[in-house]
Order: sequence, then structure tokens, then C-alpha cells
Amino acid sequence: MKILVSNDDGIDAPGIHALAEALKKIGEVIVVAPRTEQSAVGHKITMQNPLRVTKHFKNGELFGYSVDGTPADCIKMGIRNIIKEQPDIVVSGINHGANTAVSIIYSGTVSAAREAAIMDVPAIAISVTSHDVDSFDYAGKVAARVTELVAKNGLAKGTLLNVNVPNLPESEIKGIKVTTQSKAKWDDIYEERIDPYGKSYFWLTGSLIEVEDEEDTDQNMVRQNFVAVTPIHFDLTDYKTYEDIKHWNI
Amino acid sequence: MKILVSNDDGIDAPGIHALAEALKKIGEVIVVAPRTEQSAVGHKITMQNPLRVTKHFKNGELFGYSVDGTPADCIKMGIRNIIKEQPDIVVSGINHGANTAVSIIYSGTVSAAREAAIMDVPAIAISVTSHDVDSFDYAGKVAARVTELVAKNGLAKGTLLNVNVPNLPESEIKGIKVTTQSKAKWDDIYEERIDPYGKSYFWLTGSLIEVEDEEDTDQNMVRQNFVAVTPIHFDLTDYKTYEDIKHWNI
Repeated sequence: MKILVSNDDGIDAPGIHALAEALKKIGEVIVVAPRTEQSAVGHKITMQNPLRVTKHFKNGELFGYSVDGTPADCIKMGIRNIIKEQPDIVVSGINHGANTAVSIIYSGTVSAAREAAIMDVPAIAISVTSHDVDSFDYAGKVAARVTELVAKNGLAKGTLLNVNVPNLPESEIKGIKVTTQSKAKWDDIYEERIDPYGKSYFWLTGSLIEVEDEEDTDQNMVRQNFVAVTPIHFDLTDYKTYEDIKHWNI
Repeated sequence: MKILVSNDDGIDAPGIHALAEALKKIGEVIVVAPRTEQSAVGHKITMQNPLRVTKHFKNGELFGYSVDGTPADCIKMGIRNIIKEQPDIVVSGINHGANTAVSIIYSGTVSAAREAAIMDVPAIAISVTSHDVDSFDYAGKVAARVTELVAKNGLAKGTLLNVNVPNLPESEIKGIKVTTQSKAKWDDIYEERIDPYGKSYFWLTGSLIEVEDEEDTDQNMVRQNFVAVTPIHFDLTDYKTYEDIKHWNI
């Protein structure tokens, strides 16, 4: 099994090293990741500038390739110009921080997996729900397990699995649930500050507003110490509204 | 009616000036747009750097505000720190180039409208299907018409309308259709080139592969000289796969 591994925290992030180690036990791993951190870049692709590819070594052996672009760039470039064939699967992560609810849309980690889905390659995005991760060991095991299940069962074309793992020891994890995307959103605040020259600048901050009555959502399940596995796709059509607005006489 | 206008081609692009002009006839327009071109940035938001806001003038009057970030940043910042209240509607564009099919995912113009939908503001993204637009007059009329219809009928929370207008004179437009997102994809090619120092770099290019048997899709309709209006949302859950994988025993 040929596994293309990427992320959005960059090729030096502990999460991608843990992921590569975990997946080497079940297949051939090729790492193509952004040279620098690309958190919250969404599905950005680089068209106005060229890209360069650099080899990275670890303990004297090739670890992988970095691209000076985005996670989606890494998948396109990795498949087209580095591997030069379709891998069996793409696994993106392990992300430092949750990618649940609306964060799926902002996430570079999820976008790498989504780019794979667009290219008809089965894909998984995996995150641990903290920016200060204690250990990636259990998340690495989950990544390998879900990868094997996807290899065995297949995935519908255009679909990827978005996996979120609570930042807990394995013994405290309650189980694994198939989930939907939560409707929780960020309450954004731009903090205004003054630079040393007296001019103002704004810095994005905020907190996730939980939704009370959700049941099987990613956010609700990780909050209850379950691993959440959400299948997502890139057909964004709102079919209900599609029917509703036909009578608008536009 | 308070209308927040943004785009991804930047505050100096002809498309946003045409859009602001067209919408001033039906409401109060506030322009908050990226300072520089942000095509294909997807739903990137700026968290690692601060943002600055600059006023722009046109014929001695305030035209709008630029933000040195992405289209999604402009919507968040525009609503939270510039208007400081929910506008009645957000209109993003007029984009130079089609935003049909998978391009919806890469588009900054669509992401601006999607960010509004996330913030519970009805939103429209509008594009003309050419990078070399002859006239924005008809697209401006369509933007005003669809804006009035959304104001009158409302839109489901979390839904936006993605409008694509063929680059043709009004007399050659065959009509307006409610459409779904096409499954057409880009055949990506990274052109390898050699820099003046003998090192290689890669530039993304490619062409859209049409899907033959589509009927009511955005791409198929604009190809037949119709305006395409596609309702899209940001619930990415693939509900079919959600049911299918429950028996996987993860």
C-alpha cells in the first residue's frame, strides 16, 4: 500500500513524524508537506507564484519532500510530480489542534485530504484536539486502523474521513463514533492593538460557541472523550434550497 | 438595505467597482476588500499575523476599506470591526473568471460569501466567466436583481447563492437557471522550468475537464450561455457515507 502523507503544520511538526512512523508499519510512506506552518490556509492553492521542492532527511535517510506552498499544493504536486502515480491513500496530519465543526472549512489539514478526494484518491485527515499535544501515540494507532479499514472497505469517490482524537491517554478514550459536522461556530474578536509608531493593527482571536442540543456531531463526541470520524465531501450544493428557489422567477 | 461588498481580486479590480455601482441603486454599500489580489486563496483566514485596515477614496469620496488579508478576513473584519453590526446581505465579486464546479472550493470570492453565511448573513458570490471581461454591466444588473430577490424571500441560514454569468452581451444571454455544482475538475499540470541559477521550479497550469452527461449544473449551463445560480452551504457531512460506514466496526 502506497500512502502519501501530508499536513498543515509543516514538515518539521511532531505530528507528521508520528504519523509517518505509525503508517510505515502498514505500507510504503511518502511524505510531501509544506515547508512552513500553513494552519488555517483553507483550500488555498498557489497559482501566482512557482513552487519549489526540497528533500528532507532524518537519521541519514530520506524523510520526505517539502513544498513552499499550501497543503493542497503538496497533494497536487506530490501526486503529479513526485510520486507520479495515484497513491492508494492520502493521510493528512496528525494536526496539532481540533478540526471539528466549522474549523473543517478553515483547516489546511482537511484541505490536503479534500484535494486528494478531488483527485479520486481515498483520504483521511487526522487531528488531536489540543495545540499542546501530550502524545501522538494513540492518534497514530487510530490513523493506521482507519487507513486499513479504508483500504479494505473503500470509500465513495469524493469522500474523505475527518478524524478527531481527544488529547487523552488511550485508557481514557471512551470509543470511536461515526459523526456529522457540528454546527458550532467561532465567536470572532479582532483585538485592536497599537504598534510602536502609533498605528492600529488587529489580531484575530475568539472562542468556539458550543451548540447545546447536538448528538452525533464531531464536536459533541470529542467533548465526551470519543474519537470522532466524520465523512465529508466537496459537493457543496444545498439541494433543499435548490428546490426552494426554483419558484423565485429569477 | 445595508450591503457589504467584497471580492478576491482586490479593492482596485474593475469588477468590485462595477458591483458597488450597481448595488448603490438599491441600498447602502460598504466595501471591505483585500488590498491585493487573493485569487484561489480558498477559505484562508489570517491568524499568525495581524491585519491592518486602510481607507480608499474615489473621486474625492470614500470608496471603501482594504484589509491586507484574505476575502474571509475582510468579511469577519468588515462585520466585527468596520460596520460593527450585521449587514442585511453580503455580495462578493464581480469575480474575473468562472467559479463553477470544483473551483468553488478554491475561490476566494465564494469564500467571502461563505464566511458571511457562517456568520448568519445572507450572501451572494458573483462571477463573470472570463479573466478578460468585456463588460460588467449585465453582471451588475444580475447582482442587483438577485440581491433584491434574497432581500425579499430570505435565504436559509448557512446558505449562499453562487452566481456565474457568461461573458456575453445581455442580448446573447439565454436566461437564468437554478443549478447544482458540476463534477467537472481541473487536470492539473505542474510545468517544470529552470531558473537563471540552474534550479528547477514548478508552475501550476491545467484545464477544466468537462463532464459529458450533466444537465442542470453550473458549468453546463454557463457553457450554454445561461446565468447559473447555485445554492451552496457549508455542512460538508457526506450523509450517505455516514450511514454506510457505521457497520465498519472502527
